Amino acid sequence: MKKFNTSPLSGMQELLPTEQAVFDQLKQNISDVYHHYGFLNIETPIIERTDILLAKAGGDTEKQIYMVNKTDESADSADQALRFDHTVPLARYVVEHNNDLAFPFQVTQINRNFRGERAQRGRFREFYQCDADIIGREKLPIAYDAKVISCIYDALKTFNLPKMVIRISNRKVLAGFLSALGLSDKSAEISSIIDHAEKVPAEKSKGALYELGLNDEQVNKVYDFMFTKGSYTEVENSLRNILGDLAPIQDGLDELKEVTNILAASKTDNFVIDLMIIRGLDYYTGTVFETMLEDYREIGSIASGGRYDNLASNFTDQKFPGVGGSIGLTRLFFILREYNLLNMETGNPVDYVILPLSPNEFEDSFELAHKLRDQGKTVDVDLTDRKLGDRFNRAGKIADYAVVIGSNEVISQKYIAKNLKTGDTIEL
Amino acid sequence: MKKFNTSPLSGMQELLPTEQAVFDQLKQNISDVYHHYGFLNIETPIIERTDILLAKAGGDTEKQIYMVNKTDESADSADQALRFDHTVPLARYVVEHNNDLAFPFQVTQINRNFRGERAQRGRFREFYQCDADIIGREKLPIAYDAKVISCIYDALKTFNLPKMVIRISNRKVLAGFLSALGLSDKSAEISSIIDHAEKVPAEKSKGALYELGLNDEQVNKVYDFMFTKGSYTEVENSLRNILGDLAPIQDGLDELKEVTNILAASKTDNFVIDLMIIRGLDYYTGTVFETMLEDYREIGSIASGGRYDNLASNFTDQKFPGVGGSIGLTRLFFILREYNLLNMETGNPVDYVILPLSPNEFEDSFELAHKLRDQGKTVDVDLTDRKLGDRFNRAGKIADYAVVIGSNEVISQKYIAKNLKTGDTIEL
Repeated sequence: MKKFNTSPLSGMQELLPTEQAVFDQLKQNISDVYHHYGFLNIETPIIERTDILLAKAGGDTEKQIYMVNKTDESADSADQALRFDHTVPLARYVVEHNNDLAFPFQVTQINRNFRGERAQRGRFREFYQCDADIIGREKLPIAYDAKVISCIYDALKTFNLPKMVIRISNRKVLAGFLSALGLSDKSAEISSIIDHAEKVPAEKSKGALYELGLNDEQVNKVYDFMFTKGSYTEVENSLRNILGDLAPIQDGLDELKEVTNILAASKTDNFVIDLMIIRGLDYYTGTVFETMLEDYREIGSIASGGRYDNLASNFTDQKFPGVGGSIGLTRLFFILREYNLLNMETGNPVDYVILPLSPNEFEDSFELAHKLRDQGKTVDVDLTDRKLGDRFNRAGKIADYAVVIGSNEVISQKYIAKNLKTGDTIEL
Repeated sequence: MKKFNTSPLSGMQELLPTEQAVFDQLKQNISDVYHHYGFLNIETPIIERTDILLAKAGGDTEKQIYMVNKTDESADSADQALRFDHTVPLARYVVEHNNDLAFPFQVTQINRNFRGERAQRGRFREFYQCDADIIGREKLPIAYDAKVISCIYDALKTFNLPKMVIRISNRKVLAGFLSALGLSDKSAEISSIIDHAEKVPAEKSKGALYELGLNDEQVNKVYDFMFTKGSYTEVENSLRNILGDLAPIQDGLDELKEVTNILAASKTDNFVIDLMIIRGLDYYTGTVFETMLEDYREIGSIASGGRYDNLASNFTDQKFPGVGGSIGLTRLFFILREYNLLNMETGNPVDYVILPLSPNEFEDSFELAHKLRDQGKTVDVDLTDRKLGDRFNRAGKIADYAVVIGSNEVISQKYIAKNLKTGDTIEL
């Protein structure tokens, strides 16, 4: 017999059933919150035209993309590849179906994406992303930025994690600030330094700024800027101290103020304005946000997003401004397990296993199973003729309770469920 | 601007949000029933090693497979492809994880598979299959065949379709029958004729049997066999009339009897033994079944499955007998819509849209939204400053009710929900 490697390919998540049950529950929680916020689910194909996927991308994305081709290539097939995120397919979807959509279009996509990243522990090539986006036609009020943040935060609250903090900034504030300092032409490099500042010693960030050719005053102002955080009023005061005149950053400040006011009005707690937040992706144009676990900052962001002025600029002249956020569930699940922050014990997927002692008790077993299922319970009926000990052993691996049905139970119609962990019994 | 084709690739399903809501509900219904029966969900990667996928396959499958390769090919990557069904990855999963699984392993997979079939209306290259399988180690009682059938049938019942009928046969009956007639060497060809008999005139099937070289008696017996159907007793009597001696088919008959007895005991109605059922795939070895809509037989099977003696014979010497069934949801959804058998009107994904008249009412709107969400409702808060008529228009496209909140409502704390279809109002 040929020897096969039956392990999943490197970079693919594959869980045992009890682990999968925990993962599925988290995914369901996110989906439920998104839906409760009125987001509509869509599913775009996993395979897309390569030219659509790479219309904007480049660099790493292009290198990491999975190309697809049939063995039996037919003439009609364009260049095809697996999508690497939900945003590009969403842009295509909005352009294609815009006449049938109700704007603002609140849309969620919870599904797998694919990137052929270098294999590395905790990095996945096939991964779930749970996206929530709101797309306007021509314009979209800033209030929606707050809505996306509230929704993502409420979704994460279902995970029962240690204290979370939402860090919010606005790209327009940074842009106006750098413009006021005469540094607009170094915007990309400075953004990158701020983006990485959290992970390096403060002196190293300063050094990098000097290396860019900034003078002492510029370095100190950028340095003070990136460590500015607090309530809106606190941040406004700090920026006035640094910059003197707020006029160059007024647009961004107004947006920050509105977003934080609405978050407060919607009782979304634990947010802070933090000007160190940049979000690497270059398509964000206003609000940006990240969520962290306050006592596990080394984990980094567990959910993030922001405002983009134009979702589909590569595909159409129409303007579709949007704001969105995403939870990278596969990676998050992996990390939270590593940190023992998930209750994996809740994962027993079955409520009851019924154990008929012989085929004579099948009919009563099915009847009891139907009744329990009608009550919303998950019920497995074990139809094997193995030893009772073996059957209990199996039940203990998947279920909370076992119910033995023999001739006595059939006569009495009394059924006892045994808790497989504690040994306690209850009458059904 | 470069012109892009923004339509999804040929053979891919892409739905509008209200259609997607109906599709998602059907998928959820199937998943709920499978779980209530105690099936454990797993997800295998969409990308697998090509040698795993093609260990058994050949012919069309090999031609239709989607090969995958990264632009940036690294040395560690094996030949990779997209899975074309759930069964091959399940076999790999069971072999890989068998020490961690509780047998009989009741497992469900509800996810997308990929086949590059010839593009054709109603044929999909990316499609959902909703599989339920039960895998034994070394042996698996025949009673489990009935369990899979009951479960698939209960899942389909949630669709509220016209009357369904489950047609059941057993490959061992056919094999024993052909052996008794001395026709075992023509088994594949005769199976194929029986498999297609429903779609061609009876005379054509007879002709095909004569072409195979069968004599009058053989043709008549095979012909009578394939049109045999009814209760177990009726079928046994018919076969006794055709064959005289039941000994060559006794094993198969015993299995059929047990399966139908257990289906009756589990109150699964509307099943019939029907010896015309073959199921094309050659890995079935015992029970086979199909489900049809009685008044829409031209649709063909809407769910099917059967018993296979050895799931993973290509990957291991261990024996894993199993039984499984599958609902091909993407194709089924397409067909049921064509036949107007789905209630697409139930698809309003949002319960309430709240319309604050100005930002002054945002806070009250958020509070009401939270309360309604806590009651399990889906609530969208419209934060635009558009004309009220436009906002109602949008609400009508996605939701059942709209709630206008102005200063009066904030003072009175009385909120009126307007039914967007009937115009009726209710106080919340």
